[in-house]
Amino acid sequence: MTVTRDDCLAFDAKDPLAAVAAEFEVPKDGTIYLDANSVGAMPRSAPERLTRLLLDGWHGLRRRGWSESDWLSAPRRLGDKVAPVIGAEPGSVVICDTTSVNLYKLLIGALRLRPDRRTIVSERANFPSDLYVMQGANAVLDNRYRLKLVEDGKSVAEAVDDDTAVLALSTVDFRSSFRHDIAAMTRRAHECGALALWDLSHAAGAVPTNVADNRVDLAVGCGYKYLCGGPGAPAYLYVAPALQDDIQPVLTGWMGHAATFEFDIEYRPAPGIDRQLCGTPSVIASAAMEAALDVWAKLDVARAFAKHRALSELVVTLVDQGLAGPEVGIGSPSDPDSRGGFVALRHAGGAAVVAALGEAGVVASFRPPDSVRFGLSPLYHRYIDVYDAVERLGGVLQSGVWKEARYSREKAI
Amino acid sequence: MTVTRDDCLAFDAKDPLAAVAAEFEVPKDGTIYLDANSVGAMPRSAPERLTRLLLDGWHGLRRRGWSESDWLSAPRRLGDKVAPVIGAEPGSVVICDTTSVNLYKLLIGALRLRPDRRTIVSERANFPSDLYVMQGANAVLDNRYRLKLVEDGKSVAEAVDDDTAVLALSTVDFRSSFRHDIAAMTRRAHECGALALWDLSHAAGAVPTNVADNRVDLAVGCGYKYLCGGPGAPAYLYVAPALQDDIQPVLTGWMGHAATFEFDIEYRPAPGIDRQLCGTPSVIASAAMEAALDVWAKLDVARAFAKHRALSELVVTLVDQGLAGPEVGIGSPSDPDSRGGFVALRHAGGAAVVAALGEAGVVASFRPPDSVRFGLSPLYHRYIDVYDAVERLGGVLQSGVWKEARYSREKAI
Repeated sequence: MTVTRDDCLAFDAKDPLAAVAAEFEVPKDGTIYLDANSVGAMPRSAPERLTRLLLDGWHGLRRRGWSESDWLSAPRRLGDKVAPVIGAEPGSVVICDTTSVNLYKLLIGALRLRPDRRTIVSERANFPSDLYVMQGANAVLDNRYRLKLVEDGKSVAEAVDDDTAVLALSTVDFRSSFRHDIAAMTRRAHECGALALWDLSHAAGAVPTNVADNRVDLAVGCGYKYLCGGPGAPAYLYVAPALQDDIQPVLTGWMGHAATFEFDIEYRPAPGIDRQLCGTPSVIASAAMEAALDVWAKLDVARAFAKHRALSELVVTLVDQGLAGPEVGIGSPSDPDSRGGFVALRHAGGAAVVAALGEAGVVASFRPPDSVRFGLSPLYHRYIDVYDAVERLGGVLQSGVWKEARYSREKAI
Repeated sequence: MTVTRDDCLAFDAKDPLAAVAAEFEVPKDGTIYLDANSVGAMPRSAPERLTRLLLDGWHGLRRRGWSESDWLSAPRRLGDKVAPVIGAEPGSVVICDTTSVNLYKLLIGALRLRPDRRTIVSERANFPSDLYVMQGANAVLDNRYRLKLVEDGKSVAEAVDDDTAVLALSTVDFRSSFRHDIAAMTRRAHECGALALWDLSHAAGAVPTNVADNRVDLAVGCGYKYLCGGPGAPAYLYVAPALQDDIQPVLTGWMGHAATFEFDIEYRPAPGIDRQLCGTPSVIASAAMEAALDVWAKLDVARAFAKHRALSELVVTLVDQGLAGPEVGIGSPSDPDSRGGFVALRHAGGAAVVAALGEAGVVASFRPPDSVRFGLSPLYHRYIDVYDAVERLGGVLQSGVWKEARYSREKAI
């Protein structure tokens, strides 16, 4: 049974999250932005919030903003708004720094919790910046760790053993959208006495991660993708409550001190998650991010994940029924439980197809060698957007215009 | 000869930088914000720039902003605008992360350039977060370094010897505004074969730091104080050109990779200063900061430093001539070459005086035990502001209202 454009209009008509899309600005020129994996859409309230922060806060309060406003509590306050999206306990998430910096902190923190072990397990398919962070952290630690990178496609679970200190993985593969089973892999790490450290960037805000239920030890993630925190938004980090007071902070700055404004010369870590903070919070960037997190706070996240799953299945169905033409395959797993936030389509034209698709009013993204990524947001994408995007892809390929498209290696996140 | 209020009006009338103040919003209620050491004033252009970034960039370009806009070049572009303010060579400064994170990076990077040495020299009077970073970095390095903290007031120069890997100091004492002689201390470090790493936070944008002429090896600093980058603005870091390709980055993330978008699995540091970058730049915060840096770019910085010196001398003169009353002393050095961005006044009432002063329309700041800080900006402060602030302080003290002021430990930056 073929899914038609009218079917998609009908799906939208009965979508319980349809009203949420109204909280985001709609592109005026009809462009479909399948960019949820890169820069999530802007909440309508963001410009007004930022202007208010600037005029009332920066201009009106100035330094008094630190004490009379909510600037210094932003890391915890926003962290508690991220928590339900990733299935975390209140008080177990802070927003701060970048994903890479947070990974560095928690990786070294975790290694010090397993001082007799000398292996970090990850995989070659991990996001490169995560691998770079591991390599750099290991260098700081005199390269005393073995960084065991499982070949793409081989079993990570088998690589974990009783020398493994940390299993550090990205939940979702940034090329294929393959999603690990967080529960199973974390259980496997624990069976061997290792800690599990997850990068949730391409999962959180699209699919369930359930860090508490899945017994995840440590996690980090990106604020500007599915969370819609704005370009270069602060990242977040999670530490399981049972570990918070055992893990020693690595980047020990004043915001992680037990008594910041006593100005002791000796560092004493704050209790709980706060010790993972280091420098002054990015107040302006946090205000933009909070606009998005307040949209999340009003949602039933389970419903959001169900919608994402339906959008993602719709891409697969439409491609399978030939709407994009015969040359397009699905590069992502067929089981939606094994897919992350985007659906990877495969076409040998790669970046040129993405460029031509952009001209045709669909913003997607490319990752080598042949992955055309459709990043789907349960907050602002409609079923009709998915239909039209796949149809436009079919048009681009059928017309052959993509062969004239200027190929350039995409320098984009 | 007594300086009068009319004299101050005359100083303003012939101030060559008077026009620069018009680039900043003037407080509507007559409050005088002596907060340049905490949150510099907002440039008038900041709200419009941020709104444009949100509407044209986040909303209009979305993920294409990474490739079609100037988002990814922000760390270098803004760094090159900070460079003249600190006297650095073009291509030797990037903005990124926080001051504390940048200090961590450069401290460990520097220690690895002096592998046979085991001492870090600093002083107890250093900013506590800087000391915490040193302690935390040393813990990561198995506490193999001796952190030699010179007692306040004793000679740092004598503490440096041929076991010293790094001399790491804040240019300006955050309580007294005592300013180190960067040239002399750096020379002393070099005589012993050590590297000099400076935190410029309470100096840059107020007084000359001349990192290139002073042969400084490494420096970090805060974006939101005298630079006026906005609350929680990105910080900056400096690496002398001769060291840039020798120093190994510590927080090795994709933005510091030689070929970020080739997605190699092995980290290869970018040439030059870029290797010090780690995660995705904070695009929104950078846009606010650039509003201020573009004000700096139009200035003769030497003229700005001359004005700051005149403002700072005016505080001292007015206090010396009794305008603040007999109980107020100057806690900063009398030689302006030995003072940083603020002038510390001493009064036993401490935070209560600062609280009462706030009620009287002067926002200053307190640091224990008795330092009332007047943070002076050459960009937006007028001579008459200084006169009125000192006079209001005199009024507050003479009336005794400060004794009723609610004392609370200031939780403010």
